Amino acid sequence: MTQSSPTAAVLIIGDEILSGRTRDTNLNTIARFLAALGIDLLEARTVGDRADQIIAALNALRGGHDYVFTTGGIGPTHDDITAECVARAFGVALAEHPEALAILERRYGGDFNAARRRMARIPEGGTLIANPVTDAPGFRIGNVFVMAGVPTIMTAMLEDVAPRLRTGAVVHARTLKVTGVGEGDVAALLTAASLASRELSFGSYPFGAGTVGEIGTNLVIRGRDEAAVEAAASDLMADLTAAGIPVTVLI
Amino acid sequence: MTQSSPTAAVLIIGDEILSGRTRDTNLNTIARFLAALGIDLLEARTVGDRADQIIAALNALRGGHDYVFTTGGIGPTHDDITAECVARAFGVALAEHPEALAILERRYGGDFNAARRRMARIPEGGTLIANPVTDAPGFRIGNVFVMAGVPTIMTAMLEDVAPRLRTGAVVHARTLKVTGVGEGDVAALLTAASLASRELSFGSYPFGAGTVGEIGTNLVIRGRDEAAVEAAASDLMADLTAAGIPVTVLI
Repeated sequence: MTQSSPTAAVLIIGDEILSGRTRDTNLNTIARFLAALGIDLLEARTVGDRADQIIAALNALRGGHDYVFTTGGIGPTHDDITAECVARAFGVALAEHPEALAILERRYGGDFNAARRRMARIPEGGTLIANPVTDAPGFRIGNVFVMAGVPTIMTAMLEDVAPRLRTGAVVHARTLKVTGVGEGDVAALLTAASLASRELSFGSYPFGAGTVGEIGTNLVIRGRDEAAVEAAASDLMADLTAAGIPVTVLI
Repeated sequence: MTQSSPTAAVLIIGDEILSGRTRDTNLNTIARFLAALGIDLLEARTVGDRADQIIAALNALRGGHDYVFTTGGIGPTHDDITAECVARAFGVALAEHPEALAILERRYGGDFNAARRRMARIPEGGTLIANPVTDAPGFRIGNVFVMAGVPTIMTAMLEDVAPRLRTGAVVHARTLKVTGVGEGDVAALLTAASLASRELSFGSYPFGAGTVGEIGTNLVIRGRDEAAVEAAASDLMADLTAAGIPVTVLI
């Protein structure tokens, strides 16, 4: 485990997530994106469309992590207040960005009204994040990347975010699938394995609870040293097999 | 909008969410559960299996809300540290709970080993939350409800949580579906509607971006006064129709 891997946090913004209307999928997309870049996602928060909440969460997260990724609240309607809140959190002005204005004028032509013009407002010092789906850009300011909440747009924006990030060593993982027993039956072996390889992380994720099908648990071994992960997986597999517990290498 | 509606926060605990291995669905389940009870979910946080993070997040949330609901980390394996962290956050001992012990002994019989016995440890003063799926209980201490991470189990536990909550006036919602135009085309009317009914909340949730199908936006009006919500929906519908914008009442 290298100490120099960047850390990150995610801030999900939107009443619709907290009311239950919408099930967020962006956190998982960003988590997988960061994992592939070797960046450690350590925390996520979800807040509603309230300026005090957004500003407090953003300031807490941007001070504690190398990168913060926000989703939601950058559209044209009155409840889209993220850009304004980011500007207030950074203590800078929110002004029309010439490049954003040009992009939006080109897209909307005669339909470029006052509401859409709001989307050209970028906190001073911010640089744009390309939106290949609907053009209205996200932006980066300092260590904060501000993206759309619509999943197709957010996912597309990550393409323009990736080259701006310092990457870390990728975390490797092996999963052993144990079937026919509960996780309580493998807990002692798993604890012993984790104590024998303290630089790795060992997780247990049971499946089948409350269903008629097979029960079991997936044991996931993770770490930045691929050889160490494979050796630990191999040792744990041998231990489980010796104990008569059915196990297969899942991935 | 009554001032007396209880507020709540959710704390999702688990490395598997932040690594991207697992897509959380519990937040949405809890959000819908609380909405039906008229409890305002104001915030959610996701942290990994790290004691310092769990304790800090729990203390921040339980001080700021009427209720906190946690998911994850109460199983039998070494990475299940939620009960211990809750005890530390409250400054109480973590001891075997006689009733939990009896439940687990009954379930596991001869397979009741040391790992499974860990699940009988409940912070002092805690009361059990029934788990009809796999028996191992969750618990409540103070204003904190500690539940399993496995969605089927967590959902079942909510049945035993519901009767212990003070409920509020339910929030009513109407959704107007606008098609064929973007949300920028309805933003001005939506802003006017929100200014005319400040006690209600108005959201806009666009759909169809980046796809070949129809585009549009769902306008959601929410509030605790059902008649006010319906009147505002009716007025906004009339305004949209007068402006030549295609709109239907979705729900």
